[in-house]
Parts: sequence; structure tokens; C-alpha cells
Amino acid sequence: MTNFDLREARAVLERTPGQLTILLDGLAPAWFERDEGPGTWTVRTVLAHLVHGEQTDWLPRVERILRDGERVPFDPFVREAEIAGTPSELLALFRAERAASLARLDALALRPADLDRRGVHPKFGPVTLRELLSTWVVHDLGHVAQIARLMAKRYERDVGPWSAFLPVLTDRKSGPAS
Amino acid sequence: MTNFDLREARAVLERTPGQLTILLDGLAPAWFERDEGPGTWTVRTVLAHLVHGEQTDWLPRVERILRDGERVPFDPFVREAEIAGTPSELLALFRAERAASLARLDALALRPADLDRRGVHPKFGPVTLRELLSTWVVHDLGHVAQIARLMAKRYERDVGPWSAFLPVLTDRKSGPAS
Repeated sequence: MTNFDLREARAVLERTPGQLTILLDGLAPAWFERDEGPGTWTVRTVLAHLVHGEQTDWLPRVERILRDGERVPFDPFVREAEIAGTPSELLALFRAERAASLARLDALALRPADLDRRGVHPKFGPVTLRELLSTWVVHDLGHVAQIARLMAKRYERDVGPWSAFLPVLTDRKSGPAS
Repeated sequence: MTNFDLREARAVLERTPGQLTILLDGLAPAWFERDEGPGTWTVRTVLAHLVHGEQTDWLPRVERILRDGERVPFDPFVREAEIAGTPSELLALFRAERAASLARLDALALRPADLDRRGVHPKFGPVTLRELLSTWVVHDLGHVAQIARLMAKRYERDVGPWSAFLPVLTDRKSGPAS
């Protein structure tokens, strides 16, 4: 039993850059600068990571599964990428890179049976294409949640006694999903 | 020291309905139906709660502070509202209600000194207008994070071994911020 459906997953992936653009583009710089402690990320770091994932991680791994199967493991993904640009520029880059990734995905014309094809993750071994595509979706949503949490914490002292009713302010301090 | 700025806060509040519309409108029904266990909410419940908050909670409390100060406590907020409609209709309602709330907020032409004015919360007593407005922003962002988390968990079994790297899948099971 799987909840994964390629068309549904693609619909979510297609929406993330526009959603983050509406949320973030043009906001005051202070919203992009807060982290959650040493070693954790700011909103700007998350945006650079999302761009880098499009450029080096998601579609390249899909294509590796289809081309090489389990013969060649995925390249490791560098999670913290240095990408120049303002938040607005990073958002524009993410929109462009995501659109390019989805165009490449569409061109593959995947059939249901393809979702069971396997590749090799450098850390945890055999994985299926279905697992990779599901992870892509969950990874997007995890970073959306992280960005909203980072923004919320900017006002953690401003909400006064309401903080007891706002669990997003006390959710985990750790770094982002990778 | 406060991070709160009325114009910045308003910019975030203005974006939430459009952001959720891009994320959600037109997705397959299954994305709206998952909860996190007994007593927790689905995405649809969250959308109804956001609409209800516009109708009964946020601006009415702002106006009560300005009109009655500490003489009349806020009305309690009913967190779980029954509001009819599809997710798409709830999103449209949220866009309309939020626009109306912000128009009422603008019409108040709040000055910086107004932010220190006080009202009385039925549970925890005196609060300032600044705290109320900050809470409105954090409340939005908390529910954005919750919606992304609920959607991510739909694929919690589909991601295979990647689940160890996706903390959004194991984040708290509890209900939403109120």
C-alpha cells in the first residue's frame, strides 16, 4: 500500500516555488536572517539549499536510477550550498530550476512500473524511484514548515503570554531536513 | 526591545491566504483528510479554523482593546469551528475574510503608542495590542507549518529509508496552535 501518486506528487512539487514566493518575496530582510541556534539555518540558507537540490540532487538521481540502476550509487548531496544572491534572486532561481526539473521529469514519461526501479543511496543502500520521488515532496514540505517556524520565532518574545498556546515557537531547535 | 513592526506584520498577514491557495487549491481530496491521531486536526479543519478566527477573533479583539481597554475581557475563541464548504471554498472565504480584516485594521490608523494599549484575555489576563497582533502573525505561520507537516506525513511510509533524514515526519503529534 502506497499513498504515492506521480501526478499528485508533481502537483505539490510544482507549487512550492510559487508558494514560497508569495510568502517571502519582498519581505523585510530581518525575516531571512534568523536561525535557531549554532549550526542551524536561516530562511536564506534554506532557499539556497532548495536551489542547490534542484541543480545537483533530485533529477540527477532520478536519471541515475533510470540509466544505471544499482550499478552506480548516487553522488552525495552537499546540503549547505553557497549560492550568491538576494532572497528575491534565490526565489527566482528556485522557480526556474524547479520548472526545468519538472520538464525533465515529464520528458521521462515514467510508467507505473518504473517507480519500482532501484538505485543506490551512498549512505543507506538500495532505494526505489518511488521512494526518491516521495522524498522530494516531503523534503519540500519540511522546508516550508521550517521557513514558517523560523519566521514565527522572530516574534517569540513579542507574543507575551500567548506563547503557551503557540507550539510552533517551541518546536525543535535542530537543523533542517536534508 | 521588540521585533514587532506593524507594517511588516501586516505584510505577512496579507500573504497567508494567497500562499495557502497556491499550496492547496485544486489538490486531490486525500491531501485534506489526514490527521495526526485522535483529537488532532486535518488540513480542512485548519482552514475552517482560520476562517473562523477572521470572523470572530482577531479584529474583534483589536477593536475591543481600542474601545473598551481592560474594562471588558475578550470573548473566548471557539477553536473548532464547523464551517461548511469544500477546501477550495474555505480558501476563498479565508481570502475574503482576511482582506476584510486588514481593511478594518487599516481604517483604525494605529499609531505606535496604540500598540501599548491593553485588553484582558479571558484566560491569562492583561495583554497588549502589540502582543495580540504579534500572535496573529505567529498563529498564521504556525498553521502554515502544521499544514505542510500534515501533507508531508501522507507520504511517511512512502519515503523508505529517507525517513531518518526527514524530521518533519516525526515532529509532534499534538493538535494545532490556538
